[in-house]
Amino acid sequence: MNSLPSKVFETAVNELAKLPGIGRKTALRMALHLLKSRREDAESFGMAIIRMHNEIRYCLDCGNISDNELCSICGNPKRDKSIVCVVEDIRDVIAIENTGQYAGVYHVLGGIISPMEGIGPDELNISGLVGKVESGGIAEIILALPTTIEGDTTNFYIYKRLGSATIHVTAIARGISVGDELEHTDEVTLGRSIVNRTLYEKTIQKKNQ
Amino acid sequence: MNSLPSKVFETAVNELAKLPGIGRKTALRMALHLLKSRREDAESFGMAIIRMHNEIRYCLDCGNISDNELCSICGNPKRDKSIVCVVEDIRDVIAIENTGQYAGVYHVLGGIISPMEGIGPDELNISGLVGKVESGGIAEIILALPTTIEGDTTNFYIYKRLGSATIHVTAIARGISVGDELEHTDEVTLGRSIVNRTLYEKTIQKKNQ
Repeated sequence: MNSLPSKVFETAVNELAKLPGIGRKTALRMALHLLKSRREDAESFGMAIIRMHNEIRYCLDCGNISDNELCSICGNPKRDKSIVCVVEDIRDVIAIENTGQYAGVYHVLGGIISPMEGIGPDELNISGLVGKVESGGIAEIILALPTTIEGDTTNFYIYKRLGSATIHVTAIARGISVGDELEHTDEVTLGRSIVNRTLYEKTIQKKNQ
Repeated sequence: MNSLPSKVFETAVNELAKLPGIGRKTALRMALHLLKSRREDAESFGMAIIRMHNEIRYCLDCGNISDNELCSICGNPKRDKSIVCVVEDIRDVIAIENTGQYAGVYHVLGGIISPMEGIGPDELNISGLVGKVESGGIAEIILALPTTIEGDTTNFYIYKRLGSATIHVTAIARGISVGDELEHTDEVTLGRSIVNRTLYEKTIQKKNQ
């Protein structure tokens, strides 16, 4: 694509094109949309991004984003602090919260170990998790990281670091999605769903909840 | 989706979700991306949008966005000022420029007539076009608006307004895309490609250019 007829416009398009999943054509469409919108709207758009980066805080306990020292989950006395679900980022917290099935707390790593992207254990919030376990009061760690090489590596690293602690380390179940058909499921998932089969009673309880 | 654990983050996600074609999940991914990036990067992203809106100018001649009084096309002495191609917005200018087949100038309407969205002729840069034609020196107006009801309405409105002027009013050719097969083409397009068939000689000339 040729260069655009205006430098300030070009700069805005280039910045928008840096967003994940946004190509140059989509960025152009977005920039035109912002240009057509009112001046105040474009201003509040830009300021929202700048303010977010400058003012956001992280929960001292779990690493979730927060407006206060503790996030709304860690600060909730009804949540079970003895169960900690380890997730990659806040999107996973939102996804699990939306199920309404989890009453424990979270630990947000802020990423997963990825040598390709130069992310090692020190870049992640792993020491905080180990410290939390060592200081006692935790009965179970639920690993809810993605099933990729990076996710598995991170799971294993955490498992090793927690080695001496006498706690349960579990992982979220992988299996066939509810409503999916067996014949359309990939072999790895189907295999796991058989190996990790659950008691039928549990399924009934779940349905009646 | 539940509300997010941070107000500044929520505001940023809401602003990103206002972009065309961006849902809340994608906006969340974008906000996290910006949050993970360096502070300077988030700042230059936000400032680029604000600066674009405040500093951008429009070409006095054609309405294209520009850094100067005249855009780089209108300011180019090699372009043929007697042929004016009427387009909806600057994306169309970029698309036609990329073909390298057009040596005339443009007239950017800034939209098309759409009663549904409350856009009438007065909201568009149509009087400028009429004035340009009336002041003389223009031999041909090429209508390159979309083939929608709104596009057709706008075409017809412009055609009527230019009624008394002795100039050619043409429209870009609609037909089967180069490389497409006849059997997969919709009937309206195929019908038009037969009605508006072109001299075979022209096709050969095009290929040899």
